Amino acid sequence: MTPTLTSCPQTALDHSHAVPKGYLLAGVHCRIKRDPQKPDLSLIMSERPATCAGVYTQNRICAAPVVLDRERTPSDAIRAVVINSGNANACTGERGTADAKRMAELAAMVCQAEPGQVLVLSTGIIGEFLPMDKVEQGIAAAAVKLGASEACLLSAARGMLTTDLRPKLAGRQVTVGGQEVRITGMAKGAGMIGPNMATMLGVVLTDAALPPQAAQELLQSVADETFNCVSVEGHTSTNDTVLLLANGAAAGEPTGAELTAFAAAVTEVCRELARAIAADGEGAQHLITIDVTGCRSRAEATGIARTVANSPLVKTAIAGADPNWGRIVSAAGYAGVAFDPGGLSLKLNGVLLYEDGAPVPFDAASVSRAIRAERDAHIELSFREGAASARFWTCDLTGEYIRINADYHT
Amino acid sequence: MTPTLTSCPQTALDHSHAVPKGYLLAGVHCRIKRDPQKPDLSLIMSERPATCAGVYTQNRICAAPVVLDRERTPSDAIRAVVINSGNANACTGERGTADAKRMAELAAMVCQAEPGQVLVLSTGIIGEFLPMDKVEQGIAAAAVKLGASEACLLSAARGMLTTDLRPKLAGRQVTVGGQEVRITGMAKGAGMIGPNMATMLGVVLTDAALPPQAAQELLQSVADETFNCVSVEGHTSTNDTVLLLANGAAAGEPTGAELTAFAAAVTEVCRELARAIAADGEGAQHLITIDVTGCRSRAEATGIARTVANSPLVKTAIAGADPNWGRIVSAAGYAGVAFDPGGLSLKLNGVLLYEDGAPVPFDAASVSRAIRAERDAHIELSFREGAASARFWTCDLTGEYIRINADYHT
Repeated sequence: MTPTLTSCPQTALDHSHAVPKGYLLAGVHCRIKRDPQKPDLSLIMSERPATCAGVYTQNRICAAPVVLDRERTPSDAIRAVVINSGNANACTGERGTADAKRMAELAAMVCQAEPGQVLVLSTGIIGEFLPMDKVEQGIAAAAVKLGASEACLLSAARGMLTTDLRPKLAGRQVTVGGQEVRITGMAKGAGMIGPNMATMLGVVLTDAALPPQAAQELLQSVADETFNCVSVEGHTSTNDTVLLLANGAAAGEPTGAELTAFAAAVTEVCRELARAIAADGEGAQHLITIDVTGCRSRAEATGIARTVANSPLVKTAIAGADPNWGRIVSAAGYAGVAFDPGGLSLKLNGVLLYEDGAPVPFDAASVSRAIRAERDAHIELSFREGAASARFWTCDLTGEYIRINADYHT
Repeated sequence: MTPTLTSCPQTALDHSHAVPKGYLLAGVHCRIKRDPQKPDLSLIMSERPATCAGVYTQNRICAAPVVLDRERTPSDAIRAVVINSGNANACTGERGTADAKRMAELAAMVCQAEPGQVLVLSTGIIGEFLPMDKVEQGIAAAAVKLGASEACLLSAARGMLTTDLRPKLAGRQVTVGGQEVRITGMAKGAGMIGPNMATMLGVVLTDAALPPQAAQELLQSVADETFNCVSVEGHTSTNDTVLLLANGAAAGEPTGAELTAFAAAVTEVCRELARAIAADGEGAQHLITIDVTGCRSRAEATGIARTVANSPLVKTAIAGADPNWGRIVSAAGYAGVAFDPGGLSLKLNGVLLYEDGAPVPFDAASVSRAIRAERDAHIELSFREGAASARFWTCDLTGEYIRINADYHT
């Protein structure tokens, strides 16, 4: 039986979501997932060898494809990335390692590349072996569907999803050496989203050129302030991977002011994807943005923001539209960061609730109505310790999260 | 209007729950809580000055009574402990400090003690001022009800509860110098239960004698392996306090083998209370006991156990009776502890699911049935790094937790 092909969806995409030059993409359903409406295998091919940088999970238990990709990046000769969803190929021992390698070989064959020029991403259930017959059929089917249309891009973005409700795409355009270059990213989030490394899958493609080491440094720095500042429930996955591919099909290497603009555009793409991951967290009803300012260092600011983001009491308060500032300031207090409690102030959705260590009278009913009315919630914590700050994204914790995660099949 | 007095309940208590000699207790309802069936003020009096040790929250934001008690312990002259529930007196600034002191003064008056001989514990909503008129009426009413019956003990244990479903009491008896001495503890848990310090209220009474410094060292060491090894959602409270009172009314100071037996009995009392806190966590359907063995140090074992305990994915898996071992081993992997993944094994309710880094075939349906059938779930993680181990308690994460915490009034 051949895999069901997912016809290219007709959803209109924002112009910024166009495919950079020299890349072909496809997403197909090959029956790793039960629902035939859900693509579960994506193939991304670069027509020419591309620089590729990667950042990976910090989990001690990491999946076979993470081990494989970590060995192969940074690189100046990547030709393809093959991604499956529905099975993480994690905790699968030697057979898992062999399966990840075989996946790369199969993708290399259809892309006329060497096996070592292919990277592999997997996400889904931990501890089951990949159904390699389905994967093989999927790769063959994806090869036939490869294209540079927006619809193909969307199919590929959908092929990496698990419990995500929405595909996550972001794009920017900048000028390098007089040429328009594109930066287009796609990501997968939803569950097992914690703050050590990106804790998700992400692929960012550009048709500018970058040397491998510069690409690696750029991606690490961008990930630190985007994907590493997002959390759904703080559980760091075994499979987190973000790749940045740069194939130089549209332009050469950006330098000087163009490099600055290029790096800023990559950051914006990753920030947009990171926000989208938090907004689409399992069961999320609110995207919560946490700004922490006035700290001694960015690490301390991030530590406080992460602790607030991961507090189930804060997350349920937002779910319940409850301006329970006590839960927020007390979460800041156990982040392991020393601060003067008398210098702590808090705003929720712009309303001052707590100032210099003391509560401020406010209209709880109107703040509650505002939380309920908006999908975005904004927590601003300010300290009087220094000039460092951090921004972090998370989502609220709802009964739907419990339903999804108490029922998810092993 | 005088406060409603809660009549001493007639519930039969285990013999081990008797009041140690020289203590009188009461619990009354004084309208801090709305429900007149729920006592909200407890008074504990020692007829003679007692040694008292305390361990407190590590949260940077700590409540007024914590500041007060921290200054007053360890002590050799404590005469009373006054406890209110329904209001935490946290984040209440100078007025909160004055209210905590006033509470101690009021309790001192009814107990014929000096204000400095009284300790104060509060739990409940953060950021609201204590209704001091109600507190004053409550203390007066409690003074009239003071007694040494088991019913009075139960009333006092109930007076410290918030969203707890059950009062938490534990007791032991040992011999010191030919005399029977009792150790009786009570605790409050349910929500905002995290792992830095006891994250709850607890009072342990004994009628043996102890010098203050020895009492302090004993309590700190016992708390580290009992109350500090329990978590509901990992949110460290502003009010956590555990006190140990020793009034010497039954016997003198234990030494030698008797001290060893005494310390073991105190540990057992605290362990029983800690387990009870996890078992009665908000919305809990399962008490989860996590044993981590084969680590290089107890700190590393505890760190891994705590990370597993705080993972919402692990907690929802148990709620869903899902033997999802991937979530458990991956949580161990992000605890920040270095280990050889090839030496990790996992048992769930005694069934081996993962051995030396690889999954073991097992009957998922029967393991799932076993989880569903039992209120206790047991996670055993073993490593091949050393000889240190730790035990930790938590509960599962259910839709009821969300309901309680998304609806709790600020």
